[in-house]
Amino acid sequence: MRVLGIDPGLTRCGVGVVEGVPGRPGTLIDYHVVRSEPDEDIALRLLHLDRSLAELVTLHKPESVAVERVFSQHNARTVMGTAQASAVAILAGSRAGLPVQTYTPSEVKAAVTGSGTADKAQVTAMVTRLLRLDAPPKPADAADAIAIAICHIWRGGTRARIQAAAIAAARRSSR
Amino acid sequence: MRVLGIDPGLTRCGVGVVEGVPGRPGTLIDYHVVRSEPDEDIALRLLHLDRSLAELVTLHKPESVAVERVFSQHNARTVMGTAQASAVAILAGSRAGLPVQTYTPSEVKAAVTGSGTADKAQVTAMVTRLLRLDAPPKPADAADAIAIAICHIWRGGTRARIQAAAIAAARRSSR
Repeated sequence: MRVLGIDPGLTRCGVGVVEGVPGRPGTLIDYHVVRSEPDEDIALRLLHLDRSLAELVTLHKPESVAVERVFSQHNARTVMGTAQASAVAILAGSRAGLPVQTYTPSEVKAAVTGSGTADKAQVTAMVTRLLRLDAPPKPADAADAIAIAICHIWRGGTRARIQAAAIAAARRSSR
Repeated sequence: MRVLGIDPGLTRCGVGVVEGVPGRPGTLIDYHVVRSEPDEDIALRLLHLDRSLAELVTLHKPESVAVERVFSQHNARTVMGTAQASAVAILAGSRAGLPVQTYTPSEVKAAVTGSGTADKAQVTAMVTRLLRLDAPPKPADAADAIAIAICHIWRGGTRARIQAAAIAAARRSSR
């Protein structure tokens, strides 16, 4: 199963592509950070993110997309941009007809470190170990995106298969 | 100038299409509310909104898109969905190569009623009067979207023309 994980953000959006099966060490295919400038026009920033993610989906042909869920308790100014980026991330999957799953930050941390309250350094360390990388992926946004993909693989993608059927049905009915 | 105004929302997204020039009464071309169910999967909700807005842009061929800006001081649960819907709304314009402008709720209210703190009933009443409609548009989400389009027309679209050039340049460079 090849999964494209996305850690949504408007200024930096992490993308990690991992191939694997539940319960086995996976393989890192690629990772990437899509960037835009905070002072740039919002329409241009969203368009850049949309195109970049569409290109990565086309390039890597994942079977599903996993996106970190956004919560409103974070910094109020940042959270609006993160919510907007998460919409673009989810659409990058569903527009391509792929199942999309969202995971909370603590689900992702628990999946890779065993603790839902692990810090960024721990997540990066475990991603590096689990995928047997020579060096930790940089920047940390990329490590988080890779962790999201690992989390999805280990969950076995059950929900994803149910949702894939619903998306396929929605696409057929809108033609 | 034909403008497609969008009042972003995940459960109800208002869309109003108005044709006009600054300082003159405009003409209402169409209005619409795109709906989705709160208990539905987020990927399917965003996909439905994305497709519906793309169809309305194709159908009405607006010269620009105007979207109400989202603020984080609203209800925390609702605001995440509204922010996600606003990203889809902005992309509906920029993906089609159209200039997209955002306006704050008080800019929109001030443009149609003269007061930035007008209530929904006042906005609906002024939209009905300004466009010489036989009856107020319903539901109120549609009236707000129409007000956003009127606000954009009356602002003269100066910023929109500058941004259109930037979007055109971004599209050329990504080919």
